[in-house]
Amino acid sequence: MMRNLIAFTLMLLMVIGVNAENGHQLWLRFDRLEAESPVFSGINADKSKFAVKEFQQIWKEKTGKLLPVVSGQIDNQLIVGTRKDKNILSLGIDKELVRQGKEGYVIKTISKQNKTFTVVASADEKGLLYGVYHLLRILQTGEFNKALNISEKPSYSVRVLNHWDNLDGTIERGYAGRSIFWRYSEEHPTITDKDISLWREYARANASIGINGSVLNNVNASPKMLSEEYLLKVKAIASELRPYNIKVYLSINFSSPTNLGGLKTSDPLNPEVKMWWAKKVNEIYKLIPDFGGFLVKANSEGLPGPQDFGRTHADGANMLADALKPHGGIVMWRAFVYDAGKDDRAKLAYKEFMPLDGQFRDNVIIQVKNGPIDFQPREPFSPLFGAMKKTPLMPEVQITQEYLGFSNHLVFLSTMWEEFLESDTYCNGKGSTVAKTTDGTIFKQKLTAIAGVANIGLDANWCGHQFAQANWYAFGRLAWNNSLTSAKIADEWIKQTFSSDAKFVEPVKSMMLESREATVNYMMPLGLHHLFAYGHHYGPEPWCDVAGARQDWMPKYYHNASVKGIGFDRSTTGSNAVLQYFSPLKEDFNDANTCPDKYILWFHFLPWDFKMKSGRILWDELCYTYDKGVQQTREFQKNWDKAERFVDPERFTQVQNRLRIQAHDAVWWKDACLLYFQQFSKRPIPYDIERPVYKLDDLMKIKLDLTHHN
Amino acid sequence: MMRNLIAFTLMLLMVIGVNAENGHQLWLRFDRLEAESPVFSGINADKSKFAVKEFQQIWKEKTGKLLPVVSGQIDNQLIVGTRKDKNILSLGIDKELVRQGKEGYVIKTISKQNKTFTVVASADEKGLLYGVYHLLRILQTGEFNKALNISEKPSYSVRVLNHWDNLDGTIERGYAGRSIFWRYSEEHPTITDKDISLWREYARANASIGINGSVLNNVNASPKMLSEEYLLKVKAIASELRPYNIKVYLSINFSSPTNLGGLKTSDPLNPEVKMWWAKKVNEIYKLIPDFGGFLVKANSEGLPGPQDFGRTHADGANMLADALKPHGGIVMWRAFVYDAGKDDRAKLAYKEFMPLDGQFRDNVIIQVKNGPIDFQPREPFSPLFGAMKKTPLMPEVQITQEYLGFSNHLVFLSTMWEEFLESDTYCNGKGSTVAKTTDGTIFKQKLTAIAGVANIGLDANWCGHQFAQANWYAFGRLAWNNSLTSAKIADEWIKQTFSSDAKFVEPVKSMMLESREATVNYMMPLGLHHLFAYGHHYGPEPWCDVAGARQDWMPKYYHNASVKGIGFDRSTTGSNAVLQYFSPLKEDFNDANTCPDKYILWFHFLPWDFKMKSGRILWDELCYTYDKGVQQTREFQKNWDKAERFVDPERFTQVQNRLRIQAHDAVWWKDACLLYFQQFSKRPIPYDIERPVYKLDDLMKIKLDLTHHN
Repeated sequence: MMRNLIAFTLMLLMVIGVNAENGHQLWLRFDRLEAESPVFSGINADKSKFAVKEFQQIWKEKTGKLLPVVSGQIDNQLIVGTRKDKNILSLGIDKELVRQGKEGYVIKTISKQNKTFTVVASADEKGLLYGVYHLLRILQTGEFNKALNISEKPSYSVRVLNHWDNLDGTIERGYAGRSIFWRYSEEHPTITDKDISLWREYARANASIGINGSVLNNVNASPKMLSEEYLLKVKAIASELRPYNIKVYLSINFSSPTNLGGLKTSDPLNPEVKMWWAKKVNEIYKLIPDFGGFLVKANSEGLPGPQDFGRTHADGANMLADALKPHGGIVMWRAFVYDAGKDDRAKLAYKEFMPLDGQFRDNVIIQVKNGPIDFQPREPFSPLFGAMKKTPLMPEVQITQEYLGFSNHLVFLSTMWEEFLESDTYCNGKGSTVAKTTDGTIFKQKLTAIAGVANIGLDANWCGHQFAQANWYAFGRLAWNNSLTSAKIADEWIKQTFSSDAKFVEPVKSMMLESREATVNYMMPLGLHHLFAYGHHYGPEPWCDVAGARQDWMPKYYHNASVKGIGFDRSTTGSNAVLQYFSPLKEDFNDANTCPDKYILWFHFLPWDFKMKSGRILWDELCYTYDKGVQQTREFQKNWDKAERFVDPERFTQVQNRLRIQAHDAVWWKDACLLYFQQFSKRPIPYDIERPVYKLDDLMKIKLDLTHHN
Repeated sequence: MMRNLIAFTLMLLMVIGVNAENGHQLWLRFDRLEAESPVFSGINADKSKFAVKEFQQIWKEKTGKLLPVVSGQIDNQLIVGTRKDKNILSLGIDKELVRQGKEGYVIKTISKQNKTFTVVASADEKGLLYGVYHLLRILQTGEFNKALNISEKPSYSVRVLNHWDNLDGTIERGYAGRSIFWRYSEEHPTITDKDISLWREYARANASIGINGSVLNNVNASPKMLSEEYLLKVKAIASELRPYNIKVYLSINFSSPTNLGGLKTSDPLNPEVKMWWAKKVNEIYKLIPDFGGFLVKANSEGLPGPQDFGRTHADGANMLADALKPHGGIVMWRAFVYDAGKDDRAKLAYKEFMPLDGQFRDNVIIQVKNGPIDFQPREPFSPLFGAMKKTPLMPEVQITQEYLGFSNHLVFLSTMWEEFLESDTYCNGKGSTVAKTTDGTIFKQKLTAIAGVANIGLDANWCGHQFAQANWYAFGRLAWNNSLTSAKIADEWIKQTFSSDAKFVEPVKSMMLESREATVNYMMPLGLHHLFAYGHHYGPEPWCDVAGARQDWMPKYYHNASVKGIGFDRSTTGSNAVLQYFSPLKEDFNDANTCPDKYILWFHFLPWDFKMKSGRILWDELCYTYDKGVQQTREFQKNWDKAERFVDPERFTQVQNRLRIQAHDAVWWKDACLLYFQQFSKRPIPYDIERPVYKLDDLMKIKLDLTHHN
């Protein structure tokens, strides 16, 4: 009896141990499937298709049994197939399927002879996979019904994660542990079963939200990436990702011919260099026949590039494009360039790339960060969008929270990306949103793409913060459909990840939707930017001054605070950056009285007593906005604490602890910035605002022991 | 020209330097005297009197000239003198002066033959000094008028500061720098002019508020205190304090006969020991003829005492009293005794001393801390007050903020002392307040006294925190008049120390009056006590557990938190401490439904869901009260920031910085206590309350590098 009791207790502990919730399952929980399973009498599908296998496997995991395979006119059956499959051919939806393209799909309720069928169909197996995940999603979120008529195809043809993973396993700007791809240091290149199962989980998660590409290494790329040793590992990764319709891409170092190949130059116009690249690309495609292509950071922040040899970015990109072209590969060439001291940093990418418009091969796409500086909590959109009319551009957004509190702060970035994608460039009149300039709506480019810098690492929950998973999710969903609202995305994610109970969903959703604005408020409101601590970018350092460092890496370059005022004059009286925008934006931005408050100190240097639209003076507005951010984080804490009964204790406590850090940091930000700027404004913080709790002197002594990778 | 400019600049800098406001002037600024000076046409007084000199010196400092000495019937003259002086004799107020005693005085407006005189008169020169300071105070606070009829005498005959100053210059529980008396280490006993001027300033400050005694060394006394070397220094100090009517006292080590005198025993009944003390006392009085007497901490916290020889506290005190009696000296014998583990610590002083009631000589007074434990933010009064009817008791309060945030927190202690003095003991029916049991109103003892543990050190502002000066001030004022309200004291202090502008006085006063309750709220509300960090007593440590340490030094001894509830059961079902109080207090305290909330967890162990008078359950009430404390500190910050224009920048900034620390610490306290207790209550913090920003684990790691002296 006693032995039985001990055995039972041990078993119980093991079960608890196995089930201890660490967030590893992401949004792929599907814990409502069992309850929803009676909706289907069976599945009518070709069992050999990967999408069908995937569906059946998930179904079995969650309901304990396979959905029976059926054929013929059975009520409530689920029909899954591509346009050439018999079970689909008979449905008369072929034109619709062709119209949706290879990655598109339809999900429909079809009634015939008093029988009802749910159909998931596509032109190609690629699309079928996405259709199946869509079906699983609506089953999980409670949106499944018997009157479905869904027709989807992606906004962008390339939807790619950029992993800033170094070959030593560290991740630049990674806050969730080390790399899932390069988890062993160079001395231990063995691939384990654990690696393989992790890569499959990663692939499924990506496929479930429509991501179809992964750049496996840091844009600050090592030439060694293209060595045979590493390419063999890339091959292994690619073979796990391939079933999930995910291509692998690599970041390359532009001086690889010299540093890896032993050539005397890496000049893109040199025949030997061209030859070297052609051979290297052939070698890659022999290993990975569906290899996606290259991502290139060149002549940027000290990295080599064509300008080192007197060539242009176009020369460099085209040379690589020529090598990739025969294999169907593409070049994603980054526009993130800013030579020190040449002009207002915000203008430099535009000045560099606009003259090259039309000079790129058709398998080159220019990867442009959402804003003109660098992934700040808020920037206006980069003026390159809409302006480069003869060259496809791909937006690059940052999923990892380099400038948004790492994995400590809950910031749902979807609203930022939505704001960016919906920004009207006016390049083709009103309604020329960034989304439409990049997805083929306005410019009829063949190649469309979007990139997100991944926030994924070896942490059990993948992203560090449970809610950072929502940013991975949101990037995938927006890459698939750039007109989705953040509210819709949050709703889906919460229901799949936590609970569908409205008492949980609504407050948590409202917290998520408010979170980015709150972060802007407590970090850098009213268009302020780049006030971050040097190097690691965590926490405030508006006073930062590093001897010998680039001036455009110093916060003072951006805020210009003095007794006269604060802000960066990018109007016609200043750097004239406004001229890079189309009318009427340039005029609106140029006039402080029409410039939106959210960008006002981005475009203007204004006196402390400048009258804001609220009627308050600028200094007061700044104070109230910082304070609002603090109050918002406190409300988030309340929100979450109230949700305790809906969440497992592990994830509840993790999020609770991080919200505490965030609320604490918000006060740090507010005090640091207001006390620092107050030295110049020489005005009191409005007296109805909560007072600082720190001394500026003490805050200025804070030096966190953090690096730019972990 | 240039040389002149440099010289002028230097001079300017010197003037600024000299005038830089550091708070050293305390409440003795008298900056309104110049404006008020026309009220007197001249002074009619004996210039040789110290009080007259003091008045003229201050007058000259502030108005630039001496008030002219006049005689005869001159309108608006100021008449100053004692009852035997001619200018007073003629006024017909002799009976009144005699009635006020040696330290009392009157201030009157007297009109004769269409002439108006302001008269400051007393029976003795001691009283005249207090009268003169009173006149200066009302001139400064704007209360002077031409219809004065003031008659004052002190509530206690001995009004003494206890300096816990060690002979090496450190101060136990001192937070304002090192000792002003023992500023040189034992190797450098030289007395400098700076010492002498500081001692005079100290004496004037004390005299201005009625303090007439100083115990110059720590109650944890070194036998060396009574060595000739140190007595010579005491003599020097005494000679500076004497003109200000301040007697010096010394704390003695009960084993001095052995440790200093080389005797084999310090048994108080041993004839050689008695002889040794008699000789030592003679030696002291030869040096200091008006020496006040001894303060004794015996058989307390490891110090020697009569119980080491099988004698009682009465035996020990009486032996010393006999030695002092011929010289007019007194013994202040502390009741702060608690042998480990014998019973509820709160009961031990009562149990030890009640059996000795009536056994003490008439020049012995028992010094009793306000509460039964140890200077906590809130305690009920010690049950010895009112209970010892045949022995005079003197209250001991702590001016230095050992348990109230050191010199970082703004806590106006006057309200705590007012609450204590006004506590009704019911020893003689309703209205038998602690004040009346100790000042001779109820028990007709000849000897009355009150002690405050000083908060004074070498810091430029004397007390560390500018507002800690108010506690020194308040102690003096309450010792003089134990029925003064804290509102009146705060009003006087603010007007003398900062400004009389009502826009400043009223909000600052309300902050001061609220500050102690706020501190109780964020530190230890609802009767909780002794949750402090071990040793240094700064910050919360409800979890504290030091291996081998006395249990009654551990917070858990006091809070007893468990899943069952929290608090110390001192009711009849517990330690029965309630029985040490008179009816109806004992019954009120004994029943959790009638026990005041502020003492409820002092007297009761209650379940977390105990229904409080507010209708809330105990846990919620605890949460709301901690949170209220936090909100109150934030309001203090607003209050003070609004006052900026009324205050010099130096003192403004000092106070502002300390209020920030206080607001910060309040959150620390709240989070530490609520998160710790929540482990037992297992209930949510009510959701409308601001959430914790710290993790308990992190807070439990905090180990401040502080000692119990500085």
